[in-house]
Amino acid sequence: MTNTVPSPALVQRFVDLVGGHAEVGAEVEDRYLVETRGLYRGTTPAVLKPADVAEVAAILTLASETGVAIVPQAGNTGHVAGQIPRTGAADILLSLERMNRIRDVDPVGNVIVADAGCILADIQSAADRVDRLFPLSLGSEGSCRIGGNLSTNAGGTAVLAYGNMRQLCLGLEVVLPTGEIWDGLRRLKKDNTGYDLRDLFIGAEGTLGVITGAVLRLFPKPLGHEVALAGLRTVENALALFERASTLCGQTLTGFELMPRIGIDFSVRNIPGVTDPMTTVHPWYALIDISSADSAESAGRTMEALLSGAIENRLVDDAIVASSEAQRKALWHMRESLSLAQRPEGGSIKHDVSVPIASIPAFMAQADAAVMAAIPGARICAFGHMGDGNIHYNISQPVGADRRAFLERWREMNAIVHGIVLAHGGSISAEHGIGQLKRDELAEVRHGIEIDLMQRIKHAFDPAGIMNPDKVLQIRP
Amino acid sequence: MTNTVPSPALVQRFVDLVGGHAEVGAEVEDRYLVETRGLYRGTTPAVLKPADVAEVAAILTLASETGVAIVPQAGNTGHVAGQIPRTGAADILLSLERMNRIRDVDPVGNVIVADAGCILADIQSAADRVDRLFPLSLGSEGSCRIGGNLSTNAGGTAVLAYGNMRQLCLGLEVVLPTGEIWDGLRRLKKDNTGYDLRDLFIGAEGTLGVITGAVLRLFPKPLGHEVALAGLRTVENALALFERASTLCGQTLTGFELMPRIGIDFSVRNIPGVTDPMTTVHPWYALIDISSADSAESAGRTMEALLSGAIENRLVDDAIVASSEAQRKALWHMRESLSLAQRPEGGSIKHDVSVPIASIPAFMAQADAAVMAAIPGARICAFGHMGDGNIHYNISQPVGADRRAFLERWREMNAIVHGIVLAHGGSISAEHGIGQLKRDELAEVRHGIEIDLMQRIKHAFDPAGIMNPDKVLQIRP
Repeated sequence: MTNTVPSPALVQRFVDLVGGHAEVGAEVEDRYLVETRGLYRGTTPAVLKPADVAEVAAILTLASETGVAIVPQAGNTGHVAGQIPRTGAADILLSLERMNRIRDVDPVGNVIVADAGCILADIQSAADRVDRLFPLSLGSEGSCRIGGNLSTNAGGTAVLAYGNMRQLCLGLEVVLPTGEIWDGLRRLKKDNTGYDLRDLFIGAEGTLGVITGAVLRLFPKPLGHEVALAGLRTVENALALFERASTLCGQTLTGFELMPRIGIDFSVRNIPGVTDPMTTVHPWYALIDISSADSAESAGRTMEALLSGAIENRLVDDAIVASSEAQRKALWHMRESLSLAQRPEGGSIKHDVSVPIASIPAFMAQADAAVMAAIPGARICAFGHMGDGNIHYNISQPVGADRRAFLERWREMNAIVHGIVLAHGGSISAEHGIGQLKRDELAEVRHGIEIDLMQRIKHAFDPAGIMNPDKVLQIRP
Repeated sequence: MTNTVPSPALVQRFVDLVGGHAEVGAEVEDRYLVETRGLYRGTTPAVLKPADVAEVAAILTLASETGVAIVPQAGNTGHVAGQIPRTGAADILLSLERMNRIRDVDPVGNVIVADAGCILADIQSAADRVDRLFPLSLGSEGSCRIGGNLSTNAGGTAVLAYGNMRQLCLGLEVVLPTGEIWDGLRRLKKDNTGYDLRDLFIGAEGTLGVITGAVLRLFPKPLGHEVALAGLRTVENALALFERASTLCGQTLTGFELMPRIGIDFSVRNIPGVTDPMTTVHPWYALIDISSADSAESAGRTMEALLSGAIENRLVDDAIVASSEAQRKALWHMRESLSLAQRPEGGSIKHDVSVPIASIPAFMAQADAAVMAAIPGARICAFGHMGDGNIHYNISQPVGADRRAFLERWREMNAIVHGIVLAHGGSISAEHGIGQLKRDELAEVRHGIEIDLMQRIKHAFDPAGIMNPDKVLQIRP
């Protein structure tokens, strides 16, 4: 299916629909066209900036009538180029950035209703002001927007206790590729009336419609909060520690992040203000976050019980517990800076994978051996959300290697790492999605029947093929 | 679309596919054809009892080739007749009862893999034997089967802390209406690779395919467990108590059930062994369940803090805390017997609704007034999962009224109660689903665009219209 290349007159009709809030042709800023890692640069005849759901509906109505492709974009922080228009095509970019109104905050009903263009940190703050927690938390929270979080079913660091976006969203407002508006802004925790349309739009990366608003869940703020860093000899010990923590803490275990020594080194070396919080050096570290609804004492007792038992059993070799909010923030900052800390070290080939939790040590050992055999001197910085089985298996280039030559081995490394992931029944995209980056690989690794069912859904929702085409799935001819 | 009425020879071909494990014609037992409340009696040429997924696939392949409709049935405990063949049609019933094998129990990975025909209580026991909790719990757990729980996205009494079936399921095995098998038995907590097929099959009530197996989540067993009963003057006070409990306990609040005095009366009068646990009488009661991952002491302290504060503030008028496992079970038994306790009181018109939690008092007051105006003397027994906004708003007939005449007002009462539910942005089926009972009403209360999207999905998955037709949605001509 081929999309229409809009004439200047047709582009102008689109621009008129948003009252001139648009950038056209050469005016279009790079910040809309280049994704965070610089791997993709898209092209577009225009960026449209609608003010509300009615303008979005008008855009999609005109697009479906004329066959022009529309690419929705929220904060442009995605890692798989789902939000970037196709290079060389004539996809019009629909930016949600002007739709950034928080529509309602209800601390009794524990919900917040927000435009899809709201920045995540603004939603967190709005919740905070009514003494509630919106738990989604990720490195880019200062610039990512909730519509993108929803469209990628974002995860982040609090999934262990609170779940992904699917678990944090009660209702949606979506403009369909036909221009029709689905008002599914329900505030219900339980609703078994027909098929689960909400979870179909969440994680669809804008290929089934444009999410324009959402009802999000709020939670009581924990009264106690403890963060600790544990030094460990092996990934096996980290897994055993996670199992103890999980049994001891239940749902009060709000974070369990694995970090390798090289990640700490990169962070201390490359991120201003980060210092090694321990005086001893360890091959692996676990960042442990415990929240207690009950009291600060309760969280403290639990952390104390966990760590003292683990040190006694020689599972943990050293541990520190943050003693102030500033120290807690510093430990989390070190963890969240790991992505950024790799940049000055040269090229980095990244994988966002998940395996069953019990398989993490075997996966890591096998992947490390295969990668080091292929690229001697490669610096493997594998870290992430151990409690979710989700590892960001990143490979920094050998010291002094040629950046471009190293990055040219991206597909080869993907094949190695993803092959091992799949042998463990894992996923090649735990939280970042598919977009353009992993689209062809998705078609290879998922069963034919799965791709076929997805294609049938895509065609049923977007018969004209105008909605973010060729992302996730290649549009069928 | 009209389904084929199978000839005796064609019925025999189906019977041969399951090696003769079938009941044909007049042999078919009532237990397959009549649903729990006796509102529906279906007709069928045959009940097939396949042994495994391959036999299910063979049945659906033949059905799609011949146009014969197939109705999957697990434990036949559903309340909306989704599992009952259409009356007067010639739908073949596919019983999952012989597929009751637990395929794997993995306490390290915290998963259990089970055939769809496993009885819920057997899955709970298998988890218990490896010191884990499978938290789904409902009145019919001794006879309902997990395939039915999945197909209706079952809720029950632990949704507050652990969620519905959607949150308790990691992966599915499904036979599609074409006979193809989708092996989606993944064990991953995070997997963002394409559209959410799993959550589409969960809650689809067997209209998109037959769920034959599932990967279910297990949890560490709580170390502390406290159950209390609080006597309250008003629903408003119950709501205020829930808010306090929710703030104080966070995710350790594992149950908060509302019960009216009349429910206690029915239960004491009609259920052998149930006695009123309190010496004082109250218009309303809250059953509060707190679990602690930490220790028995911690759960006890939290319950004590919650109740003493609430009594001091005159929110709660009296309270008892169960002091033994037997007492805890007795309190839960009283709550779970409320449905059964209504039977000897004559006809009961039932509603399974949800509203935003903060709207519960207003909904109850408005519904009570409207129902009592329509049927003076009606005995309203509204109880349920207050923490989820889910009320089973049941109306027992006036004392001495004619049962049949009362039950003939089912639709009229539905219109009254559901009208008020919808005015509060609520759902007409919080956990029981749509099936046959609420199908026509669904088409009225959901937006046209929602029904249209569901129809498009149905057609994309089941073009021949053979998969549990006319449930949830009316098959389009």
